[in-house]
Amino acid sequence: MSFEFKLVRQDRDSQARAGVFSTPHGDIPTPVFAPVGTQATVKTMSPRDLKELGASLVLANTYHLYLRPGAELIARLGGLHRFMAWHGPILTDSGGFQVFSLESLRRVSDEGVVFRSHLDGSEHRFTPEEAIRIQELLGADIIMCLDECAPPLDRAYNEAALRRTHLWAERCRRAQTRNDQALFGIVQGGVFADLRRKSVEFLTALDFPGYAIGGLSVGETKAQTHETLEITTALLPADRPRYLMGVGAPEDLFEGVARGVDIFDCVLPTRIARNGAVFTRRGRLNLRNACHATDPNPIEENCTCYTCRTFSRAYLRHLIQAKEILGLHLATLHNLHFLLQLMREIRQAILDGTFIALKDAFLSEYPINQNEP
Amino acid sequence: MSFEFKLVRQDRDSQARAGVFSTPHGDIPTPVFAPVGTQATVKTMSPRDLKELGASLVLANTYHLYLRPGAELIARLGGLHRFMAWHGPILTDSGGFQVFSLESLRRVSDEGVVFRSHLDGSEHRFTPEEAIRIQELLGADIIMCLDECAPPLDRAYNEAALRRTHLWAERCRRAQTRNDQALFGIVQGGVFADLRRKSVEFLTALDFPGYAIGGLSVGETKAQTHETLEITTALLPADRPRYLMGVGAPEDLFEGVARGVDIFDCVLPTRIARNGAVFTRRGRLNLRNACHATDPNPIEENCTCYTCRTFSRAYLRHLIQAKEILGLHLATLHNLHFLLQLMREIRQAILDGTFIALKDAFLSEYPINQNEP
Repeated sequence: MSFEFKLVRQDRDSQARAGVFSTPHGDIPTPVFAPVGTQATVKTMSPRDLKELGASLVLANTYHLYLRPGAELIARLGGLHRFMAWHGPILTDSGGFQVFSLESLRRVSDEGVVFRSHLDGSEHRFTPEEAIRIQELLGADIIMCLDECAPPLDRAYNEAALRRTHLWAERCRRAQTRNDQALFGIVQGGVFADLRRKSVEFLTALDFPGYAIGGLSVGETKAQTHETLEITTALLPADRPRYLMGVGAPEDLFEGVARGVDIFDCVLPTRIARNGAVFTRRGRLNLRNACHATDPNPIEENCTCYTCRTFSRAYLRHLIQAKEILGLHLATLHNLHFLLQLMREIRQAILDGTFIALKDAFLSEYPINQNEP
Repeated sequence: MSFEFKLVRQDRDSQARAGVFSTPHGDIPTPVFAPVGTQATVKTMSPRDLKELGASLVLANTYHLYLRPGAELIARLGGLHRFMAWHGPILTDSGGFQVFSLESLRRVSDEGVVFRSHLDGSEHRFTPEEAIRIQELLGADIIMCLDECAPPLDRAYNEAALRRTHLWAERCRRAQTRNDQALFGIVQGGVFADLRRKSVEFLTALDFPGYAIGGLSVGETKAQTHETLEITTALLPADRPRYLMGVGAPEDLFEGVARGVDIFDCVLPTRIARNGAVFTRRGRLNLRNACHATDPNPIEENCTCYTCRTFSRAYLRHLIQAKEILGLHLATLHNLHFLLQLMREIRQAILDGTFIALKDAFLSEYPINQNEP
């Protein structure tokens, strides 16, 4: 089957675009933010919570699910959708990013990457063929090529890694046997324009139904991120979705959309919630702070999420101070609502021709470069 | 205002009875099981979850809320109902049980009990007047007298404690200033029939709108529990609700109802869920066990809870093995549904005149005296 990406509107003032990516488990209106469900659950959220929030795409991590509970088990139970009872579109990564984050635990060659499990130290090997085999067992709608992630500023490393990433992309393309999964190629090349160009040229020749942009927001400056992104999306075909991996701070969604990105994912909203931090239109705030102890107001006035419709900051702070799980759930729910709602507003603004105005208005209120919680 | 307890049906074959207890925040159909929300949250449950489960009464613990976030704070924020966004009936205990569980941290006299906080070691004093003052600040619909809890088999201890419990009950009755809270007296006396009789006589002379039965299921045999319960409920006025404190195992609900108890509460369903244990009609099972790893079936066939309608045992086991919060939430939801649903069936059976048949059928399938998880 073919995966249709319908471009609904191209912004005139930026590279922003609104579209619809059709998958076997439903249409994804783009641009879209995908909550991350690392272990086949978006932390603290049930599938009905995600549905209520209007999530249209959920990410799961191949590395984690391969180790526990195992891809064969998930396949035997009917695949990832049925296993986690999320019947909308799912995207799995290739496992490469996690494996390359293991540092001393891995050995890489052209054949693949050997690594030790963070759970029990057992040895495993991901090859391009294995990454596809596992993702076919999991059965997500969108799957990823195995790639080698390099530090974005290291030229020599990026040259070597790019050769391997391209070798692996070809092997992944050949290894794919299911036609109901959209396999995305991953553009690498660090902050180096010529490498990014080379990567786009190589991968587009393989004609993937979509392209991911990897290796950004991992150590380079914001200016370098933006420049590299601009160069890359300008080279990518307009009729295929573009996925900026691992990016999801509110300000970064605007900057990415403005440069032609369609799909985002990030653990940020769920991770900071577990530290008591929540998004507002005027920046993040931390519910642990004593100033919220007696505050009868919601996290954000006019926010339509269940948390803000129902609970005071004082109650949320109490839950977090008392280490009550409900506090983590309610903060996560708000943060996901914040990003999903923001993305809906962004998409509507693109359709209305007012995207740049919305971006300017949002960024004038929202303080960026805050310390991570 | 007066608190009406309407007796709808008295079983002919047992002391079981179906009724309705009316409170300012709604009617409670009895017999009823109350989930415990120690820190102003039933662990892992949102108020909308509790509503969906059909909970009609929720318990909160005065000791915990007094220490954190503080009763004055909750009062300033509109009281406990508004604070935790549970707008149905709430019951608070007096804090006595928790304080008497602190062991070395407390000193008791006729005046009251001095104790140290388990949070920071700071010294505090509960008197009967203070227990009422705090519970009036919290604003629950049903509140409790301060009582002294004694080991059920120690005659001398129970005699001394009973004198104090009665002294304190009188002072609590006098200290009460709000008329929109039903203050319950607590019958004590361990397993000693004459002490229980003395306690009922003393307390009923004070004419409380309801009576709690304390000091049971804390070390005596089941036969002693049942005998003491029978003696006590036979002496209590039929037109007032009876609350058996801290009891909630499925088999104990049947035994309590059969002996004329109307209200139960217990941390059991929420606590065992956090260890991966779940109720079924054929006994408890632990989702951690390897036998569930590949099981595509729900916890219980025909169970109508969200967990059983949606997820396999294999997925639930995965969540618990992976330490995912969703696993605790889904197991808790099932366990609460199990007890609340069981209580609805019990009440219907009383109305239908089939209570003893239901009790016999249930207990013939349900293995009792299992080890605590």
